[in-house]
Amino acid sequence: MLAAEYVRNGMIEVVEADPRPPGPGEVQIAVAYVGICGTDLHILHGVMDERVAPRAVIGHETSGRIVAIGEGVTDWVAGGHVTVMPLRWCGTCPTCLAGHSHICDRLDFVGIDSPGSLQQNWNVPQELLVPLPAGLSLRDAALVEPVAVAHHDVRRANLSPGQRVAVVGGGPVGLLIAVVAAAGGADVRVVEPDAFRRSLIAGLGFEVSEPVDGAIPALIDGWTGGAGADVVFEVSGAQGGLDSAIELLGARGRLVVVGIHAQPRQLDLKRVFWKELEIVGARVYEPQDFSAAVDSIAAGDIPVDALISQVVPLDRAAEAFEVLAAGGSVMKVLVDCGGDDQS
Amino acid sequence: MLAAEYVRNGMIEVVEADPRPPGPGEVQIAVAYVGICGTDLHILHGVMDERVAPRAVIGHETSGRIVAIGEGVTDWVAGGHVTVMPLRWCGTCPTCLAGHSHICDRLDFVGIDSPGSLQQNWNVPQELLVPLPAGLSLRDAALVEPVAVAHHDVRRANLSPGQRVAVVGGGPVGLLIAVVAAAGGADVRVVEPDAFRRSLIAGLGFEVSEPVDGAIPALIDGWTGGAGADVVFEVSGAQGGLDSAIELLGARGRLVVVGIHAQPRQLDLKRVFWKELEIVGARVYEPQDFSAAVDSIAAGDIPVDALISQVVPLDRAAEAFEVLAAGGSVMKVLVDCGGDDQS
Repeated sequence: MLAAEYVRNGMIEVVEADPRPPGPGEVQIAVAYVGICGTDLHILHGVMDERVAPRAVIGHETSGRIVAIGEGVTDWVAGGHVTVMPLRWCGTCPTCLAGHSHICDRLDFVGIDSPGSLQQNWNVPQELLVPLPAGLSLRDAALVEPVAVAHHDVRRANLSPGQRVAVVGGGPVGLLIAVVAAAGGADVRVVEPDAFRRSLIAGLGFEVSEPVDGAIPALIDGWTGGAGADVVFEVSGAQGGLDSAIELLGARGRLVVVGIHAQPRQLDLKRVFWKELEIVGARVYEPQDFSAAVDSIAAGDIPVDALISQVVPLDRAAEAFEVLAAGGSVMKVLVDCGGDDQS
Repeated sequence: MLAAEYVRNGMIEVVEADPRPPGPGEVQIAVAYVGICGTDLHILHGVMDERVAPRAVIGHETSGRIVAIGEGVTDWVAGGHVTVMPLRWCGTCPTCLAGHSHICDRLDFVGIDSPGSLQQNWNVPQELLVPLPAGLSLRDAALVEPVAVAHHDVRRANLSPGQRVAVVGGGPVGLLIAVVAAAGGADVRVVEPDAFRRSLIAGLGFEVSEPVDGAIPALIDGWTGGAGADVVFEVSGAQGGLDSAIELLGARGRLVVVGIHAQPRQLDLKRVFWKELEIVGARVYEPQDFSAAVDSIAAGDIPVDALISQVVPLDRAAEAFEVLAAGGSVMKVLVDCGGDDQS
């Protein structure tokens, strides 16, 4: 079978690997599609080598169908369509004991800390599987993981219908947050520097601003009548995005930190005090977010066709990374690993 | 009558001023005691001149008794003991309309933005008065305002009994937060660099740490069993205090920003994301906090004698500021303005 391996900084190689049967408690999936995300790009660029030891199969946004069952697996049968919630927690650390297993102190993020899905056949612990309903295409189901991120982020925001919500950063996750928040009744605006993404987001019916000088005051005055936003999602991971987010929030507004800020950031804590702002981190997802994501996609609430810019076959997996790294006219790129029995 | 006026950077002058009768809707208070706080010191040092135009009577932690009633005042009678919630809001800005009048966009903080209580007779709009119960001494009642701050801060923390709560900065407000949080059933620790304050806080039964290298990891391991704190109050206003607070918090822990950070701060937003932390600003108080503060002091829950380091007569008001500015063995200093009919 084929597997795409991260070899070293900048290099993905597709190799012939020996398939192995699923071990006890494991299920073997014929992988259909794998979405490539910003974290995968970071891995390819070598910045996560302390977590990802090459050669490593990465990939954590997965759809597929069950093709074999390991010893002791009783709840799953061959042929079923599934996605994978790629988190393994220890169950015994203080964070797990406090009920926050999804950010376990020893979290194994499958596809980063352990082998991922960029391969034709993938053995996965049975407890990571999430069933897909009939009628949900495996292509669309490759988006469940990022949609679950969006559901988690929106849940962390404690949104009420009618609240004014801004999303700073309109990449795939930002757009999905906008979609999920709007589905929940929020009045959503997006701020995004890239013209292609702005145009795509506007095409989906969202008002979208370019983050030029004066853009945030214009939003405060024109959109919120001087009140400021109720919730801002910081998805850019950049200092400028953070500054815009803090500027845009009204009294008791809530900033949800979604983007990864690798460096410490300058923050106007006096403003946090003055306006009694709230800042909350939102990382990965919990099982209910995965269920909600499956339901959203199955219900047709997610603009999957607008999100999926390109599908690349597994033997040319490196291209998927190149397209993303080049930026430009792209949102989500999927790798077709061959396991889609519908296509 | 005497009034203490802020004249210019570093200078307080006690002058003979003409008393004026209370205007329509005003009540005249014979001021008993005025607490001096860090903000008053900032004013004296000239850093708030854009809000406080000299010559100005400052002071906003007040107790006293009603001596005269202006036209149209029906709910108050001469002789009553009162404190003053020194906030005036506009009622029409977006923040007021959203129900957060205490942080009104045009807030008049009485004693800063308008004349305060460091005078023998003070005319106050009737709606700012808060009645004091019989049996509560006017000296103790001078602490209602800072105790209300503590109640507000603790309310913003959404504390549950048994939660582990650290207070970084053990001045008067930090100590009051510790007392109020402990009264609510929290397991409280204090971090404070000053030896006198540590000793005073320890004398009240709190465990208190010096913020030396290794102090925070020792708290995490020894106190929280590796889990980290549930809530940290940042009361120091310093970068080091912020860093300690963020380090100390466990997964989904909540940082309450109480201290005023005049400069932008470096913040490890990746850690906020990673541990799904929450950061909330807490500014001044709402009416229910003032009521709770009166009740706490009246119930004997506040260690008033430990907090009040010194009482200085109004004609030597400058001394109160000097004692505070010098630091050392001091918590709260009150100015005795002569209106206490119990003493």
